[in-house]
Amino acid sequence: MKFGGTSVADLDRIRAVAEFVRRDVDAGASVAVVVSAMAGETNRLLEMAKDAGAPAPALDARNIEQDAIVSTGEQVTSGLLALVLQNLGYRARSWSGWQIPLETDNAYGKARIHNIDGDALGEAIDSGEIAVIAGFQGVSTAGRVATLGRGGSDTSAVAVAAAIGASRCDIYTDVDGVYTTDPRITKQAQRIEKVSFEEMLEMAAVGAKVLQTRSVELAMAFKVPLRVLSSFDPPDAPGPGTLICDEDDIVEEKIVTAVTPDMNEASVTVLAVPDEPGRAARIFTKLAEENVNIDMIVQSASRDAGFANISFTTKDDEIDNALAALEEARQEIGYKSVQSDRNVAKISVIGLGMRSHAGVASTMFQTLADKGINIQNISTSEIKISVLINSDAAEYAVRALHEAYGLDKAN
Amino acid sequence: MKFGGTSVADLDRIRAVAEFVRRDVDAGASVAVVVSAMAGETNRLLEMAKDAGAPAPALDARNIEQDAIVSTGEQVTSGLLALVLQNLGYRARSWSGWQIPLETDNAYGKARIHNIDGDALGEAIDSGEIAVIAGFQGVSTAGRVATLGRGGSDTSAVAVAAAIGASRCDIYTDVDGVYTTDPRITKQAQRIEKVSFEEMLEMAAVGAKVLQTRSVELAMAFKVPLRVLSSFDPPDAPGPGTLICDEDDIVEEKIVTAVTPDMNEASVTVLAVPDEPGRAARIFTKLAEENVNIDMIVQSASRDAGFANISFTTKDDEIDNALAALEEARQEIGYKSVQSDRNVAKISVIGLGMRSHAGVASTMFQTLADKGINIQNISTSEIKISVLINSDAAEYAVRALHEAYGLDKAN
Repeated sequence: MKFGGTSVADLDRIRAVAEFVRRDVDAGASVAVVVSAMAGETNRLLEMAKDAGAPAPALDARNIEQDAIVSTGEQVTSGLLALVLQNLGYRARSWSGWQIPLETDNAYGKARIHNIDGDALGEAIDSGEIAVIAGFQGVSTAGRVATLGRGGSDTSAVAVAAAIGASRCDIYTDVDGVYTTDPRITKQAQRIEKVSFEEMLEMAAVGAKVLQTRSVELAMAFKVPLRVLSSFDPPDAPGPGTLICDEDDIVEEKIVTAVTPDMNEASVTVLAVPDEPGRAARIFTKLAEENVNIDMIVQSASRDAGFANISFTTKDDEIDNALAALEEARQEIGYKSVQSDRNVAKISVIGLGMRSHAGVASTMFQTLADKGINIQNISTSEIKISVLINSDAAEYAVRALHEAYGLDKAN
Repeated sequence: MKFGGTSVADLDRIRAVAEFVRRDVDAGASVAVVVSAMAGETNRLLEMAKDAGAPAPALDARNIEQDAIVSTGEQVTSGLLALVLQNLGYRARSWSGWQIPLETDNAYGKARIHNIDGDALGEAIDSGEIAVIAGFQGVSTAGRVATLGRGGSDTSAVAVAAAIGASRCDIYTDVDGVYTTDPRITKQAQRIEKVSFEEMLEMAAVGAKVLQTRSVELAMAFKVPLRVLSSFDPPDAPGPGTLICDEDDIVEEKIVTAVTPDMNEASVTVLAVPDEPGRAARIFTKLAEENVNIDMIVQSASRDAGFANISFTTKDDEIDNALAALEEARQEIGYKSVQSDRNVAKISVIGLGMRSHAGVASTMFQTLADKGINIQNISTSEIKISVLINSDAAEYAVRALHEAYGLDKAN
């Protein structure tokens, strides 16, 4: 079971969490609970660290100290939840990352899990003790506390579930499941009963915020079924949530499972790049050096013979870095000019059924054409088609596609 | 160097602490710094733990969780101070109790230090790194975080100093040294230049609050000279403070070094206890079972033949427990009645020179007699004489004794 920051925001919420844990334990389950810091606590600690001079521009000792400071938030929550469970008459204990140990690399602030020794944890759980684990943290090979980066508690939970051979990892959050599209855009959005790891991964990658990409990757690698549930449901009458599981466990595959909008896109076009080998590589090497994440790359012929235009998308908050990097490498790349557009959105349709069903792309393009929406850019994967459109048309497009793929509610 | 809660109360105070550390490092010292939680932080965390159901009435898993929660306060301070030092251009790192490791027993909430492995710490310091250590905490033999109890940061500091073979342990606090008596009682109180461990131990035991008894005991055992200094002095013009050192390092021994009042005393008299072997033992066994700390025991003849009166003192906040315990054991002890008095104070005169100089006690009794102050109870050790008097006369008595032993200022 994993509970995020809003689910443990104060002692009343922590008591509510204890009721969920109690319910599962009383039903016969052996339980490990991973908790985040109380909502707002991580920011308070980060603010203090920032005032004291963290983080460092590049990885250095300052990032290590920031991690040492910030990781205390989860330690407090895990201690409090263990206390509440003890006072309900259960055996429970808190576990810090170093106590498990949950071993990470030395990339402080965004560490990756190397290994989890599940022995001590498993022994404690087998003895009938509830394990309450501080999420978001581990211990580096250097013996220092390292945090996994924002949303890292999901990753902790999945990794712990894998290490102890859990039959399922329930992620309690402030929504009651994964939806066919953003319910704020259309009331026709439906909770999905079951979705495959692959689909969830594509949804997370294009901006569905329910789960972190890394936690889904990990769940897929270790075949740990995930369930997304609301911690705001009454513990004795929980909603069914959404099960994220192996493709083989999904009997009825839909052609399209979800329509996922991403409003934080920005597009950049580099105009009149000399059309010769290696020029595109120079652009993307430079952008990688400056840590700009790029997506949806398209090369097209320029009006000038012997030149090409190269377009790509990035995130809204990375476009300034991207433009600065391109300006710096102007001589080296040899382009004529750069155009950028923050007023774009990426709309993706995702579904396992695409592998075996033709016509998914043409339905998408036809639907958008019928609505008079211009497609600026297209990218595809085996189970996903994404298009870049003007962001003013994004919500209209989502509603049209949601209906076109038969995702609207029956009523 | 050790800095308490008021010395690290906020980031400005932590920056001031960094200036003290910088000064000593720039002067060529290798430095380990032990820090407390920011003032108020320990209480905030304790309050949360209490709301969640800690502590347990007796030692159980709840106390362990309380320690896990409360110990995060020092971890935050140590991280912040390390960050500030790093940003001043120094190599610094924070150390939690488990990272050193500072090993304790399993008496959570008031753990005692078993052992400190000074190797990793010493290596880091030798390499030119400033070690910033979270005080008040260690790791138990069970691998859990254990706190040393209130004031435990002083003990951490002395233990670390001993483990790394430090030449001195400087305790920075909110007073500028140890005084011949409480400066609030008389302006004649003088800062003591040098005081022996033995004297300081007696002073701490009778209520001088500058240092915890345990930290002085430890310093004495490992012969680590302590210095008490003010963290509110300017770092570039510090006061001399008070040096607490081995008796052999004090050239000019005073007969009396300090007059120490303790206002938190209460006295209890058990009247008409049958005067036969084992009756006194029953009283004090019962009190020990109820964890009542007792002091200054006197047995005197009762007016009734075959009976004795037994008096003892305890602390103000323990007297209710003491009276309840006596009531419970009334039959068993067989006494007639109990009298109690909260309106008493213990005044102690302390000095190494007492060993070799006669007349210290008679000076005390004569001085009090001259002032018309009645002595209710007397206890002595090799270097201390304590008397119990009415608390209304306490300040008057302190001033008279301070003058009588020649402790008043020269001017």
